[in-house]
Amino acid sequence: MKTTRIGILGLGTVGKGVVEALGRQNTVVIDKILVREPYRYNSDLPLTTNVWEIIEDPDIDIVVEVMGGVDPAYEYLSSALHSGKSVVTANKEVVARYGPELMELARQNRQGFLFEASVGGGIPILDALTWHLRATPIHAVEGVVNGTTNFILNQMEQGMEFSAALQRAQALGLAEQNPSADVEGWDSARKLSILAGLAFSSWIHAEKEHVLGITHVKSCHLRRLHEMGFGLRLVARAQRQPSSIGFVVAPTVYPRGHRYLKLAGSQNAIGIFSEAGTTWIEGPGAGGIATASSIIADIQRIRFSIPDREPLFFEDFPAADIDDSYLIFTEDPYQPLPDIPDSLQKGAGYLVSPHALPPETGLVQYRFRIQ
Amino acid sequence: MKTTRIGILGLGTVGKGVVEALGRQNTVVIDKILVREPYRYNSDLPLTTNVWEIIEDPDIDIVVEVMGGVDPAYEYLSSALHSGKSVVTANKEVVARYGPELMELARQNRQGFLFEASVGGGIPILDALTWHLRATPIHAVEGVVNGTTNFILNQMEQGMEFSAALQRAQALGLAEQNPSADVEGWDSARKLSILAGLAFSSWIHAEKEHVLGITHVKSCHLRRLHEMGFGLRLVARAQRQPSSIGFVVAPTVYPRGHRYLKLAGSQNAIGIFSEAGTTWIEGPGAGGIATASSIIADIQRIRFSIPDREPLFFEDFPAADIDDSYLIFTEDPYQPLPDIPDSLQKGAGYLVSPHALPPETGLVQYRFRIQ
Repeated sequence: MKTTRIGILGLGTVGKGVVEALGRQNTVVIDKILVREPYRYNSDLPLTTNVWEIIEDPDIDIVVEVMGGVDPAYEYLSSALHSGKSVVTANKEVVARYGPELMELARQNRQGFLFEASVGGGIPILDALTWHLRATPIHAVEGVVNGTTNFILNQMEQGMEFSAALQRAQALGLAEQNPSADVEGWDSARKLSILAGLAFSSWIHAEKEHVLGITHVKSCHLRRLHEMGFGLRLVARAQRQPSSIGFVVAPTVYPRGHRYLKLAGSQNAIGIFSEAGTTWIEGPGAGGIATASSIIADIQRIRFSIPDREPLFFEDFPAADIDDSYLIFTEDPYQPLPDIPDSLQKGAGYLVSPHALPPETGLVQYRFRIQ
Repeated sequence: MKTTRIGILGLGTVGKGVVEALGRQNTVVIDKILVREPYRYNSDLPLTTNVWEIIEDPDIDIVVEVMGGVDPAYEYLSSALHSGKSVVTANKEVVARYGPELMELARQNRQGFLFEASVGGGIPILDALTWHLRATPIHAVEGVVNGTTNFILNQMEQGMEFSAALQRAQALGLAEQNPSADVEGWDSARKLSILAGLAFSSWIHAEKEHVLGITHVKSCHLRRLHEMGFGLRLVARAQRQPSSIGFVVAPTVYPRGHRYLKLAGSQNAIGIFSEAGTTWIEGPGAGGIATASSIIADIQRIRFSIPDREPLFFEDFPAADIDDSYLIFTEDPYQPLPDIPDSLQKGAGYLVSPHALPPETGLVQYRFRIQ
């Protein structure tokens, strides 16, 4: 088996995880790593500040991009594919915006373009979705895919107001200095675009009307919900509708005991509802080692796969709001329906309608609007 | 893209699911289907009673085996690989017993040998384990991988004795007429051999001392546990130990609210505990459409993969019992520890030791012995 040579763009938490994990492999060699400030790193590493030394190096087979952001990452990835290199990326922003274009570019150049790490960090969801779960028609995909908002909501449930909880998350390194992508729901929306794109062969570009973050949630609401046996999470959900793909990111209410409310630390949970049944995958949604494991998996898949795959065809369905309401799900159809207290219906909000999803999903869904 | 021609061995629930699912594809064609009694089926299907018409047909690329049992399935699969065909199988008994040998035979013949459907029906676990989750060292793998025992235990918790609950499961078609593989734990043990084999590169052949079924569980124990807030499931678990692989299938006690106790119908749940964190996958563990989706995924992977993979090397670790005790897990390290009532410790059983697993697993484990 030939040695595979890779170039890495970026050396943050995930990049360092990739370097460490590849230290255990002897068939994959790191040729060069692009960084901005080489003096900040261990001098044993093959650092460069010139991206073209990677993109134009004929010995490099795969470019791994872990720098983030659209500009200049998108340009670098397009150029790498044009140069006949395969690409592995963790960049959800680039994939959400340019996924189908880059997949097609990879196919034309007979290269791989994989992005397992872009959704759910170390959770093995995208490859399973592409090859396995799509094999039976999918009704809906949903999940809690942002750990930062989980942390903030937990703090708020204990009485802290949003801005104080956010500051605490920033102090602990759990939220970015510019936190808008996380707390306004755009990070979740990008991940949902990728999940829905693969699930429904229709790449949705989220608009503002589909995405509601947690910035308007009040600590007093969370405490009140908690007293009544409910909790709230920022949930992303896409579902197949007659002539559109329902697409929504919104704070959503669940009865105590629901899997979303039990997610600890950076754990994420993603559910796929198909004709074959319901599949849930929970795992580490962030972290250097976890995210690196997704990148290593993509590298191995490219090493052992023929890049000349059948094209994935994407249709253009319009995105539609599912509902601007909060949702309550109960998972077990044999369980009694959750008791929605009158006070909640009249006070903090009201029940819009109970609505059974297709029976094979095993879900009963309540639309529930909070004032 | 060339059309792929397949031969199917067996036309039961899963075989019919495969035929139906492939009806939606136009790049995979069913050439022949092996059955014992052709007059029982729709005459439009290309049936044969002679397996060599499939194994020796040079036009057939992939043999799909869904007949079950070791004899003659093992011989057919070996012959197919020797004849230069790839093999996809749902046969956990053959894979648990001959997995490494058949993988090596496939590699030598530059063919694929995949068996996603053999564990967890439609759950995308084995490919994720092989390519992704193994990328970081795995501490343990465990799961509830047998739906029949879930049904029986649920009936018993409501007051039915084991033999009556088993008869009911048989009457509903949820248990085989010869139910020993399910209720004595061998079905779970075979699936655990496959999971542990891929997780630890060591194929364990379960011995009787590692496998405890549910035949000795009494309805009065389950009712008593239930009153105290606990439930019981048949759990399979393998873990890396200093010089062995801990391997156990045993009835295990969990506090109410644990994911295993919420599994409805034929849902299975499998957890992977690695240095990257904990990953849980839950999904349909049985059913024609679900299991067929795993087979379709394997067919597609073989169509687009180079069969000349690096060999998987298997080491010989001895199998060791983890403990002949029942286990209690609590998943959330921030939750208070479950309250083990004195009566339970003195009466139906006793707590052996609380034992924290590695912190990255987020689990606290209690060993708990029932008299």
